[in-house]
Amino acid sequence: MNKRYETFIAQSKKIFVLYSANGVLGWDHEVYMPANGAALRAEQQSVLSGIAHELKTNPEYIQIIQELLNDKTLNEAEKCNVRETWKGIDRSRKFSKEFVENLSRVISESFSAWHQAKTENKFEIFAPHLEKLVEIKKEEAKIVGYKNHPYDALIDEYEPGATVEKLDILFKDVKEQLVDFTKQIFAKPKPNDAFFFGEFPHEAQHDFCKQLVTEMGYDFNCGRMDVAPHPFCIGFSPLDTRITYRYKTSDLSEIIWSITHEGGHALYEQGMNPEYIGLPAGSAVSLAIHESQSRLWENNVSRSKEYWQHYMPVLQKYFPGKLDQVSGIDFYQACNKVEPSFIRTNADELTYHFHIMIRYGIEKQLMEGSISVNDLPKIWNESYKNYLGIEVPSDSMGCLQDVHWAHGSIGYFPTYSLGSFYAAQFFDAAKRDIPSLKEDMGKGKFNGLREWLRANIHQHGMIFTADELCKRVSGESLNFSHFMKYAKEKYAEIYSL
Amino acid sequence: MNKRYETFIAQSKKIFVLYSANGVLGWDHEVYMPANGAALRAEQQSVLSGIAHELKTNPEYIQIIQELLNDKTLNEAEKCNVRETWKGIDRSRKFSKEFVENLSRVISESFSAWHQAKTENKFEIFAPHLEKLVEIKKEEAKIVGYKNHPYDALIDEYEPGATVEKLDILFKDVKEQLVDFTKQIFAKPKPNDAFFFGEFPHEAQHDFCKQLVTEMGYDFNCGRMDVAPHPFCIGFSPLDTRITYRYKTSDLSEIIWSITHEGGHALYEQGMNPEYIGLPAGSAVSLAIHESQSRLWENNVSRSKEYWQHYMPVLQKYFPGKLDQVSGIDFYQACNKVEPSFIRTNADELTYHFHIMIRYGIEKQLMEGSISVNDLPKIWNESYKNYLGIEVPSDSMGCLQDVHWAHGSIGYFPTYSLGSFYAAQFFDAAKRDIPSLKEDMGKGKFNGLREWLRANIHQHGMIFTADELCKRVSGESLNFSHFMKYAKEKYAEIYSL
Repeated sequence: MNKRYETFIAQSKKIFVLYSANGVLGWDHEVYMPANGAALRAEQQSVLSGIAHELKTNPEYIQIIQELLNDKTLNEAEKCNVRETWKGIDRSRKFSKEFVENLSRVISESFSAWHQAKTENKFEIFAPHLEKLVEIKKEEAKIVGYKNHPYDALIDEYEPGATVEKLDILFKDVKEQLVDFTKQIFAKPKPNDAFFFGEFPHEAQHDFCKQLVTEMGYDFNCGRMDVAPHPFCIGFSPLDTRITYRYKTSDLSEIIWSITHEGGHALYEQGMNPEYIGLPAGSAVSLAIHESQSRLWENNVSRSKEYWQHYMPVLQKYFPGKLDQVSGIDFYQACNKVEPSFIRTNADELTYHFHIMIRYGIEKQLMEGSISVNDLPKIWNESYKNYLGIEVPSDSMGCLQDVHWAHGSIGYFPTYSLGSFYAAQFFDAAKRDIPSLKEDMGKGKFNGLREWLRANIHQHGMIFTADELCKRVSGESLNFSHFMKYAKEKYAEIYSL
Repeated sequence: MNKRYETFIAQSKKIFVLYSANGVLGWDHEVYMPANGAALRAEQQSVLSGIAHELKTNPEYIQIIQELLNDKTLNEAEKCNVRETWKGIDRSRKFSKEFVENLSRVISESFSAWHQAKTENKFEIFAPHLEKLVEIKKEEAKIVGYKNHPYDALIDEYEPGATVEKLDILFKDVKEQLVDFTKQIFAKPKPNDAFFFGEFPHEAQHDFCKQLVTEMGYDFNCGRMDVAPHPFCIGFSPLDTRITYRYKTSDLSEIIWSITHEGGHALYEQGMNPEYIGLPAGSAVSLAIHESQSRLWENNVSRSKEYWQHYMPVLQKYFPGKLDQVSGIDFYQACNKVEPSFIRTNADELTYHFHIMIRYGIEKQLMEGSISVNDLPKIWNESYKNYLGIEVPSDSMGCLQDVHWAHGSIGYFPTYSLGSFYAAQFFDAAKRDIPSLKEDMGKGKFNGLREWLRANIHQHGMIFTADELCKRVSGESLNFSHFMKYAKEKYAEIYSL
């Protein structure tokens, strides 16, 4: 037995237990906490974070980790636990207390200003705060360090290994291949989706969606599904991973793909190796890989023809008499309607990536200093005109729509696109390994796919990097052609191209 | 500004924040946690308790408190905060680590044994564990110290100031006055309560009960109401105090008086002085006073004639066509049906106290050593025969029915009766101070009563002892005659005695 490693694990588990308790408080905050509970909740979360931070920066703990970094007797998972724990601590200990407090204050002020700016459609309210944030984020990049581009230091927090060099190539592909392809789609008549709108009781929506995630393999003994203002998935551990949804009784499309999306995230969390609960070897490798799991179930699975050929009769039973005239093919085509839109979160799975491409370009240039914050609305609106052919009617529906920048998150957006592209590549690999995959989907059988994901992705936690994982699963690094092939095959058929 | 007092408050608040976070985890455990979340939840709660305990027993903190005990510049509330905090710490620091660990282990084993014993109706499975517990509790009493009776040291944890001397007098009154009175009732025909049973949809039950507690004054901005296996109230702070209920769609009586009971507890928690959140001056003075608030709303208010004269038409609207033939008087009489029963938690408000009297006698004698654990079933069954005239059919429905002893709680039961007796006395005082009280209740107006309770009881937290509070409110110490008068007036009318 390695005594030093055991001491490291005991302390790491205690830190995890505190963060997971904070997670429960956060879940309650989003889902059930009464309005006036907010002040105490903020204190509770701050006290728990503070205690966890103290434990994380305890000099003895740090020394043990540093000694373990050179321990040749550890196995791969153990090495991963030491390496990744150290990476997190090493990044955060680079920042002075003053820097952290200043960042936290600027974010807090930015968030309020953004909220007001969006409500009143006045970019000038948010602009000075965003300028400050950009300056601090440049400083953060300097403190963290980078080889080629300051943006690399920021995206590394969300997607270790991603760089401007790689993203530039990727979004060049998006621009050259996807823009043209969607223009062909825009020219064609759109599928009818009028049947999404009507009167659909909440209870039946809930029950149908519960069936969908249960049949995906989501385990309700290790989770639950609640209504919340924003859909999310939170994993306290593989044994307690919860999802939320929102719904409109007037619009069936609000809930369905959101629940399969969150269900995909949850399968990743529930599929972690129970031996490493709360440790890096039992944690998600990156945001993009996490997003690949949600997108795979949302798009590759639950927006497929086979899926709706199976689930259409099921759906009809939940809403007697309401969807009798709608076929599985009708439903499949409707949920794959492609059209330009202003709001990222409402976009279809193709034009979605233009929204990300535009944000990525802006973030990169802000960090380079090649554009200024004041030019942002102009650049935003021109980009939407260029790539989506639409005139943005207001900054609230334009560059003020997303909260990320106000939260200080620069470098986060690209992980959304990366997730979809990984999903397409993983799905191709799954089809190669499971010849009956499409056929199984048409029967509502997802065991094979779920176990394949568990064995090839979930259970590895952070043992491999995102790139290593991708190579192991698919034989190559991330390659946009998988997504493009998926898009072309699917949409050429739907739109008779 | 008193710097020392401020340091004390800062540390005390941090301890409170940790316990309140633990409260949220406990609530989630009871209400929404998926089954497999239990193991991590136990770790979370144990880590948080451990950290809070460390802070509580920090020598610097203890020293500051000891210094503040002699600080003459503090006001009454501040003195209360220091005094009561010290009392809690002083009690717990008397126990050695070995004692605490041993107690915790014995309780843990007892609980499993009790559960099995109750399920299989085998007292002999539980007996050896209860023997161990009784021995440890005797040791606890010795460690804590007492003047007259070892039981005094135990009940003091739940009801400071209560003693065997006082309880003996009280339960002698119960025996001499209440037993005879209920015998007269048993001889009379019972009111019809058949209309409680039928088919009552959950949603309507929920909505009706939500209206009841809202009109009592429960603030849903500072709380919520959920389904749970056991009804309870938990106050994280006056700004977030939650209640739970259980229901049967076949039996309307399962939910109603349970919700007004928990609502009464919740009004106490929500009514604490917000200046002293998490401090003794903003905390319940004792279990009996807490119970007085629940019993007052459950019995004196929501089992009154006026209450059902007002709410019967409201109830009828929630269940169209189901209760049209039932008058307010019918409902009032039905919910005051008095009859012998085996199970404490199902008992009416009169025979309830025989259940407590029997348990009190047994607990006291076990602590004296004047009876042995093995005699318990015999003594129990004889007592039920004596006071309630019924033959206990099995130990599962007899001395194994309650969890308290298995949890190591000896001295807890009497607070239930004390609560009812305080409630009657407080309600008399409220009638004296609010001449229109009964009339208001008949109109569904509870503002006056609630504000009276807030001003006279809730807002004082632990500033006064239970006895001091009782004298301030009613002019005298706890006096059983108020309960007896209430019982006689009410039941003489219902039963035409």
